[in-house]
Amino acid sequence: MADLSGQPAFVLVRPQMGENIGAAARGMYNFGLERMRLVAPRDGWPNPSASAMASGAGRLLDEAQLHETTADAIADCHYVLATTARPRGLTTPVLSPEAAMREAANRIARGEKVACLFGPERAGLENEDISRANAIISVPVNPDFASLNLAQCVLLTAYEWRRATAEIEHETVQMAGADWANQAEVEALARHYEERMEEAGFFFPEHKAESMKRNLRNLWSRMPLTRSDAQTLHGVLRQMVRWAGRGR
Amino acid sequence: MADLSGQPAFVLVRPQMGENIGAAARGMYNFGLERMRLVAPRDGWPNPSASAMASGAGRLLDEAQLHETTADAIADCHYVLATTARPRGLTTPVLSPEAAMREAANRIARGEKVACLFGPERAGLENEDISRANAIISVPVNPDFASLNLAQCVLLTAYEWRRATAEIEHETVQMAGADWANQAEVEALARHYEERMEEAGFFFPEHKAESMKRNLRNLWSRMPLTRSDAQTLHGVLRQMVRWAGRGR
Repeated sequence: MADLSGQPAFVLVRPQMGENIGAAARGMYNFGLERMRLVAPRDGWPNPSASAMASGAGRLLDEAQLHETTADAIADCHYVLATTARPRGLTTPVLSPEAAMREAANRIARGEKVACLFGPERAGLENEDISRANAIISVPVNPDFASLNLAQCVLLTAYEWRRATAEIEHETVQMAGADWANQAEVEALARHYEERMEEAGFFFPEHKAESMKRNLRNLWSRMPLTRSDAQTLHGVLRQMVRWAGRGR
Repeated sequence: MADLSGQPAFVLVRPQMGENIGAAARGMYNFGLERMRLVAPRDGWPNPSASAMASGAGRLLDEAQLHETTADAIADCHYVLATTARPRGLTTPVLSPEAAMREAANRIARGEKVACLFGPERAGLENEDISRANAIISVPVNPDFASLNLAQCVLLTAYEWRRATAEIEHETVQMAGADWANQAEVEALARHYEERMEEAGFFFPEHKAESMKRNLRNLWSRMPLTRSDAQTLHGVLRQMVRWAGRGR
């Protein structure tokens, strides 16, 4: 895993064109960001077109972490942001790039690990990915012409990261008062609930099951859960299952 | 002339690649900016590569104003910003993109016309161009990798324009208390002084003449001159010339 101390990871989810991966690396490095992660790049990895485009920022590609799924890519992160142009009908806080990077900087200063998800060029992130995020980043584009590409979105977010950290550079770093659950722990909790609730016949009617699951998963992602909260919630569920078994 | 009411003009000075002009148009329009001016584009105008790249923002190119010199392009403007990565040894205020676009928005709300200069891809703006500006915009890039291209620089500046105007949207518009000199008037004043000071042997020694002229020109550009200030300064100079003639 790339060391995330002091920086968020920028996670490109299923990027298509190598050129855009290279341009994203340049955009990141322009503002001092060096931690890139890739989820299932369409044309495989490494990608010569990406390296050609990245030029001076090629080191980011050499050191980029490759993952098969978004869940894997963010497993060690405590706070996940998703960039998306479209509102998705999920109950998730929507932040400006400025507010999002300020939040990221504050959390990183407290010792948390932060990731920022960017979707594929054409379609953007899928709801499946977005539901894993704690908050959405929405760039305030012209509603008549919202055509930001991947590299531009990365550039603007990286720019706001630099603005946020330049401002808080001399702020005292506070240690976290709590031991936050990381994404793998939240994922385990979400899966635990999903499986048991499935058994319990919760996801009904059938045609609504998919969106009900997504909403449930999204709920866990939005909560500021500590490790001990997660243990408690596992315990609650186990107890309910035991109780249900006893009741039969 | 493009109507500048409500918006700054983005002036691309001697741009080289048509693709970059098109990408700049997209970056502008993404954040609601529509007034583009072009100074002596290398490959002529119109440029099919620019149109191909601009796609949905092609209207900005159709309506772009074409000029032969930077002076012509900003003649009707009261306040001019220049984007540059490098410090130039000119005594000119340096603003962040945020501060610059806030200043631009405030001035436009007071009825002034504002232009923002962007240099050619490789070399950036020349000192000759920068000396016409009231202030410099400097993007806070990573000092180890400052490779922002033209379209990226336009994008970030346009983004800050939108942030600035979204914030002041409901602010009351104040009419200017003063009738500000426009750029053509400041230019006339600068030329008047330069010519007379040349006659007066002011620009000496020879090898320093160029930079002395630039500093003088820069001085006028930095001043918040009203029309009546400009008239006064013309009068001062005419009087000195008359006096010098009388003294011989």
